Amino acid sequence: MHFTSEKRLDDSVLEREFTLGEIPGILWTPASTPAPLPLILLGQPGGFGLRQMYPRLLARARYTVAEGFAAAAIELPGSGERPRSAAADRVGADLRRALAAGESVTDDIIDRLILPLVDQAVPEWQAALDALLALPEIGGPVGYSGGVISIATRLAVVEPRISAAVLFAGSFVPRAILEEARQVTIPLYVLLQWDDDGNDRQRSLDLFDAFGSKEKTLNANLGGHTGVPQHAGEAAGRFFARHLK
Amino acid sequence: MHFTSEKRLDDSVLEREFTLGEIPGILWTPASTPAPLPLILLGQPGGFGLRQMYPRLLARARYTVAEGFAAAAIELPGSGERPRSAAADRVGADLRRALAAGESVTDDIIDRLILPLVDQAVPEWQAALDALLALPEIGGPVGYSGGVISIATRLAVVEPRISAAVLFAGSFVPRAILEEARQVTIPLYVLLQWDDDGNDRQRSLDLFDAFGSKEKTLNANLGGHTGVPQHAGEAAGRFFARHLK
Repeated sequence: MHFTSEKRLDDSVLEREFTLGEIPGILWTPASTPAPLPLILLGQPGGFGLRQMYPRLLARARYTVAEGFAAAAIELPGSGERPRSAAADRVGADLRRALAAGESVTDDIIDRLILPLVDQAVPEWQAALDALLALPEIGGPVGYSGGVISIATRLAVVEPRISAAVLFAGSFVPRAILEEARQVTIPLYVLLQWDDDGNDRQRSLDLFDAFGSKEKTLNANLGGHTGVPQHAGEAAGRFFARHLK
Repeated sequence: MHFTSEKRLDDSVLEREFTLGEIPGILWTPASTPAPLPLILLGQPGGFGLRQMYPRLLARARYTVAEGFAAAAIELPGSGERPRSAAADRVGADLRRALAAGESVTDDIIDRLILPLVDQAVPEWQAALDALLALPEIGGPVGYSGGVISIATRLAVVEPRISAAVLFAGSFVPRAILEEARQVTIPLYVLLQWDDDGNDRQRSLDLFDAFGSKEKTLNANLGGHTGVPQHAGEAAGRFFARHLK
């Protein structure tokens, strides 16, 4: 992990860009950290990239740091400047064709779109976690928040250092991930936008049902994908405070 | 409205029992109220009665008063000491027979069980509201919390003095109420227990979907009917604070 830039924001948040091998990332901490902090990994939707998502990521990071956590994000495979695979381009084209034709998105498209992303992104998050937890200012415990719900689900199954997760039901969910969800046991707080056009509501409810966690909350609100109300974001923050402090 | 008893509880909550015609009720306020208070009507499940529900009602009332509201409950038709109708007894027997036989509860049973209760209880709540709002220590606005969700739904449609409602998805919902729900426009916060045996989860989700309100939240948690976690109750409290203060 190499820090490539360091910037102190006006509210005393320290923002550091880093690279982890070929993966760019950003770490936000308070400017001064007398004791090692718990950490929240900030997931993002696929296909946009850190730069394009930066304003929303920064808002989440500021809130997270103000609540007493460190926050970190890394570029997803195939997003931003990272190379796209030919297979990802092909399924992207198939998806656009299906949507333009008003057809339903098949399980085959969902599998080809999501599963390779999960397979690649999860070990990258784990490598980032290794590097972040080696920093003196970060001590854990660790939460994961938002982003592609299938990545979060796999990560919650395979990564024991993640103690709690806020999931955002807003992307296609392969059937295989529904099965993996039964192995998740950490506390979950799931945000669902009831009128999210890009989201299969029933599949999201099935996924919530499938999670094996003994403590899980679904917080569903009227509105589209980006319309998560402030009170729901604050409720997710309180969930992390209950479980990570 | 006649007050029949007055008791100051150890935490300075004033508990007054009253009768409104033949309907018993309880009003909880702070012992001293320098300014008129907003009011929350505390609904209860059918068939138990104020006396049997008193410990849980009192806990909700204490919390509500501590948050700066007056709280009131009235006895439902056919509950407690209030007379039961022969028709209610017949459908109660039909329901027990269906449940004992492991049969699904038919729409006919649900309609006969719930609709007469709604028809009778809603004007009683309105009469109670007339009397309560005439007291100098109560000023509004008014919220409704919990109880039989079909009563809450009808009340939200017909009673303009109710500004926000916390609903508890935990009872049978007639199809006619699903239709009425489309006319509800006030902000709603719906608590759903995901594993509530006495509740049809899909019907509850359909009801949430049907509400016409522009602002509505579903907060669903793992567990059975009486297992609402403390954080969900507190979230409902914050919802009232946002809308009634």
